[in-house]
Amino acid sequence: MTVAHDQLANAIRALAMDAVEAANSGHPGMPMGMADVATVLFRDYLKFDPAEPRWPDRDRFVLSAGHGSMLLYALLHLSGYARPTIDDIRNFRQLHSPCAGHPENFELAGVETTTGPLGQGFATAVGMAAAERHLSAVFGDALVDHRTWVIAGDGCLMEGINHEAVGLAGHLGLGRLIVLWDDNRITIDGATSLSTSEDIAARYTAGGWHVVACDGHDPADIARAIDAALADPRPSLVACRTVIGRGAPNKQGTSATHGAPLGAEEVAATRAALGWNHPPFEIPADIKAAWEGFGARGAAARVDWAARLSGAADGAEFTRRMDGRLPDGWSIGGHIAGLLANPVKVATRKASELALEAINPAVPETVGGSADLTGSNNTRTKGLTVLDRADYAGRYVNYGIREFGMAAAMNGMALHGGVIPYGGTFMVFSDYSRAAIRLGALQRARVVHVMTHDSIGLGEDGPTHQPVEHLMALRVIPNLDVYRPCDAVETAECWALALERADGPSLLALSRQNLQQLRTDADENRSAKGAYRLRAAAAARRVVLVASGSEVEIAVAVRDRLEADGIGADVVSMPCWERFDAQPQAYRDATLPDDTLLVSIEAGSTIGWERYVGRHGLRFGIDGFGASAPAADLFRTFGLTADQITPQIVAALEARS
Amino acid sequence: MTVAHDQLANAIRALAMDAVEAANSGHPGMPMGMADVATVLFRDYLKFDPAEPRWPDRDRFVLSAGHGSMLLYALLHLSGYARPTIDDIRNFRQLHSPCAGHPENFELAGVETTTGPLGQGFATAVGMAAAERHLSAVFGDALVDHRTWVIAGDGCLMEGINHEAVGLAGHLGLGRLIVLWDDNRITIDGATSLSTSEDIAARYTAGGWHVVACDGHDPADIARAIDAALADPRPSLVACRTVIGRGAPNKQGTSATHGAPLGAEEVAATRAALGWNHPPFEIPADIKAAWEGFGARGAAARVDWAARLSGAADGAEFTRRMDGRLPDGWSIGGHIAGLLANPVKVATRKASELALEAINPAVPETVGGSADLTGSNNTRTKGLTVLDRADYAGRYVNYGIREFGMAAAMNGMALHGGVIPYGGTFMVFSDYSRAAIRLGALQRARVVHVMTHDSIGLGEDGPTHQPVEHLMALRVIPNLDVYRPCDAVETAECWALALERADGPSLLALSRQNLQQLRTDADENRSAKGAYRLRAAAAARRVVLVASGSEVEIAVAVRDRLEADGIGADVVSMPCWERFDAQPQAYRDATLPDDTLLVSIEAGSTIGWERYVGRHGLRFGIDGFGASAPAADLFRTFGLTADQITPQIVAALEARS
Repeated sequence: MTVAHDQLANAIRALAMDAVEAANSGHPGMPMGMADVATVLFRDYLKFDPAEPRWPDRDRFVLSAGHGSMLLYALLHLSGYARPTIDDIRNFRQLHSPCAGHPENFELAGVETTTGPLGQGFATAVGMAAAERHLSAVFGDALVDHRTWVIAGDGCLMEGINHEAVGLAGHLGLGRLIVLWDDNRITIDGATSLSTSEDIAARYTAGGWHVVACDGHDPADIARAIDAALADPRPSLVACRTVIGRGAPNKQGTSATHGAPLGAEEVAATRAALGWNHPPFEIPADIKAAWEGFGARGAAARVDWAARLSGAADGAEFTRRMDGRLPDGWSIGGHIAGLLANPVKVATRKASELALEAINPAVPETVGGSADLTGSNNTRTKGLTVLDRADYAGRYVNYGIREFGMAAAMNGMALHGGVIPYGGTFMVFSDYSRAAIRLGALQRARVVHVMTHDSIGLGEDGPTHQPVEHLMALRVIPNLDVYRPCDAVETAECWALALERADGPSLLALSRQNLQQLRTDADENRSAKGAYRLRAAAAARRVVLVASGSEVEIAVAVRDRLEADGIGADVVSMPCWERFDAQPQAYRDATLPDDTLLVSIEAGSTIGWERYVGRHGLRFGIDGFGASAPAADLFRTFGLTADQITPQIVAALEARS
Repeated sequence: MTVAHDQLANAIRALAMDAVEAANSGHPGMPMGMADVATVLFRDYLKFDPAEPRWPDRDRFVLSAGHGSMLLYALLHLSGYARPTIDDIRNFRQLHSPCAGHPENFELAGVETTTGPLGQGFATAVGMAAAERHLSAVFGDALVDHRTWVIAGDGCLMEGINHEAVGLAGHLGLGRLIVLWDDNRITIDGATSLSTSEDIAARYTAGGWHVVACDGHDPADIARAIDAALADPRPSLVACRTVIGRGAPNKQGTSATHGAPLGAEEVAATRAALGWNHPPFEIPADIKAAWEGFGARGAAARVDWAARLSGAADGAEFTRRMDGRLPDGWSIGGHIAGLLANPVKVATRKASELALEAINPAVPETVGGSADLTGSNNTRTKGLTVLDRADYAGRYVNYGIREFGMAAAMNGMALHGGVIPYGGTFMVFSDYSRAAIRLGALQRARVVHVMTHDSIGLGEDGPTHQPVEHLMALRVIPNLDVYRPCDAVETAECWALALERADGPSLLALSRQNLQQLRTDADENRSAKGAYRLRAAAAARRVVLVASGSEVEIAVAVRDRLEADGIGADVVSMPCWERFDAQPQAYRDATLPDDTLLVSIEAGSTIGWERYVGRHGLRFGIDGFGASAPAADLFRTFGLTADQITPQIVAALEARS
């Protein structure tokens, strides 16, 4: 028995409007408007198996317009995923429901990526599509042969990041990326014509995309357009002309349906208009069965795929990478032993390159890149070839001058699985990519952000290029591990910790300028504790100096002067706040004891350092903007030299005694 | 006597390569490549008067590719600005030289805007061009009739913000904006073809722009293209095909000239190739005189303009606005008196609207807007008409879903002068606009960022939309005043402080949810001190509760419970850290005395609160991501209710005693 298309799509519409009504908040307009397109996609095109939501060769489906989350929840529920249940949907937007206001990848196995901040789902999907091509090139079509589908709205297309995503996908020739654009010509404030006059199709064509349009409420026309997208080798934009809130007779086509419940009266009118005479949250059995049939369509393909996997010579390696397990026996230890045997005085960006020279050959799932600063970020190691349309097996992406797009694409690669992405830019441009760094942290994506030129130490480029507050601003992002190593040994340790972390992103803040190698031991990964005593007081301890990165060598110099005056001082190197805060209280107290004068030294914002040195400790840092001059002049200008710091500590000790 | 074009342009080339050589750092490639284009612009087109760099009706010239700062310094010096002197240029990139690595508007009067972070100069120029059209519509062509010129590189065009800037300028029809694109097909990593395949001209045409190309080394062809740009009513992109590092015989056309000195040998070879036989920093008198002649060209126009100004009925008003003086006698006092007479319980976003209802009629230089969240940000007051191509005299900009572009455009409006821009978005999207917020702070631009939905209090939209760390991340930006008012009275006070601040941006963090009016007095603007005692202990004081925004009413509830138990507690409302930190030590100590249990309550990151409550004070906040649920459920889940906080304070007091 065939269920009519309208019934299938109306099931989505009903769930969406009823769930928003029950929650008394949410966005019915997009799910109702895109119900027809989504129905065609799930019915005839999407490769998926609800019984195995994490099947590696599934198509990825990204709801970039994440406010329309009820579309996704309805699709997952109807097509037979274990979650969300109808009760989950009934509790849409309530505490502990996996049906959050915006889709969260950590709540439901069927959600590929957390979306909501406009434009990012689309850009994340570009990374997924790139990861697919890469893994297909490495492991072959028999194991990796899927597509990435996106539903995006006008907001996703208007955001700046869209330009970066379009440019990157067009340049890489990601033909398996198909974006279904909800072309409803309505934004929150009203008609799109209030704020944009763009010829979107022409822009996409200019970016190397294929563009096709369809009537987003005509199933045959939708299928025709998707077929055209499938046939074209370029990434495709399918402009689906839709009516927002389609089905709500008095409100459809207006921004009133965008982000608020329709209201009981309009819900009733919609039921009548659609001929949907079922109570809220009840789906007739024949309609549910038809939807589950679409879900069952993928099972056979998945079984065939599993057979191919078990017969593949590199099947175990593929599974290892997709599971996110590092190669057996991999360790940074050999590289560190080499550093201890032959110490180096290099910038930590160079130390990062040295670490990567050890990592990349041993960990083949890394894919590096830079936002057009390869030589400055030191991200490309020997033998790493370029990943582009000529060779998707390459492991280095020229992201272009697209920091935000790079970070979002890296999130997508990590979420796709099988790849551990890292990418570089200047740390000051973390402000450009920050929203994607955050979304990666929320999504627990295993990404390594390589941020070089991490302070005034970059010198002459001046305040626009000198991150002063960025380190602290990054530390406050939840679930992001921020590392600022002080020398080549710590850099290697931090790289190991970043790589080994499977449940979230890490960020390395690295110097432009050369730094002494301060570490002479490596019995254990000392950076793993976040902070540790690098130098112990010789004289009776009265001072503990805590510093990170390039200021640790200043702290060591201060200590040596204090000790020469008979004042005992520890130096604590603190490469990672997040890890230190996770240590037991006793370790933290012993490392930063209250009965000493606690002093922090870091070439950045002092706000926050009171956590470790208290309200009345001394904090040396920079609370204004930097300046343009050679680095040594700047450290002097901002008072960050042993000559300037030491007497202030002595004076503070005298005042206390 | 006419000096040949090549000699004029080579003067720029020589200054650029010699200054970079002397500094042993910098970017010679762009100035040398664009020397011909810039020469034609300054010789024949740009309206300027070096004797009056701040002449209100001058053309604005923005070097968006700010790394090519030596181009700008050479132009200013050659054409006769008082600064930079040749010695300033000789000290390029040295401490205290106004010739910083990137152009800084606070270093040289001839620098319109600080540039360097790619893409932003261009987007800032869009705001300048919009301000010009607005003021021209208000004051007439006799007073306001100038153009905005931009030199932009491939990086500026590749950044995401470029899409937003192009879209906004195209939509607003800013035909007086002309962008000279340095089409040299080289980025830092090599050829642009490494990372982009875009048809840039087609993209700009799609955005509603006029595009014309020229040979960037042929003066006549450059002039032809600029004439075409002048003739077209749309904003124009002039694609200037250039050779990066033009003139350096062995390096030109390669990325080697981009960001490093040419080296002594290549400098000598360049001198020979150009026939420039003058020592470094010496400009032959005839060439200097010719350049100064271009500078003198504008003097007559400026004198005519000054005569028109002094004859204009609204001349004084125009001058007041351009000087950045608020209307005489303006005060928020009447509005606050009304609130005290009739207290309101409203969200602070609504309180902001109420304040704006008082401000906008009285302060006609405000230009509001929102990134497509007008109804949520409460930024549009009664009677504010839309500023668009149909009516540039309007005072409300529909910025579209372009947070970053909005913030940069607002910087441009403020830098243009005559306008005080404010614009709204959700606070979580400060991550999108952050780089422009920072650049505005560096440039001391008078902009007000209206950030609503400032915590988990927004409820159901969940963690992607809940700013948790954003407040702290914004507080660490230097020279940005961040306000988080607790009620309608504080909101009005903070708005007044933001408006009155002429030397930098302010940001208002505002609640979605309703808040009690806690203030019952307004003898002075108490928010001006940053923090103040809102409630004094009745019983003997043992506790001081410090909070901001929506958590102040929680602090008041906690206090009432403590007082009921005989425990004296102050409540300190802290709407602005920056202002509190600027108070005398005695005031700060009296407000947050060491001999009490100090407790902070804020629905966001606790990192940083140790500044006020110490290492061992109690900090109530949220150090992870939020969740999707009704707001009241979330405050309970995150432990931010008087019920949950009060017993912890009592326990801490017991542990101390």
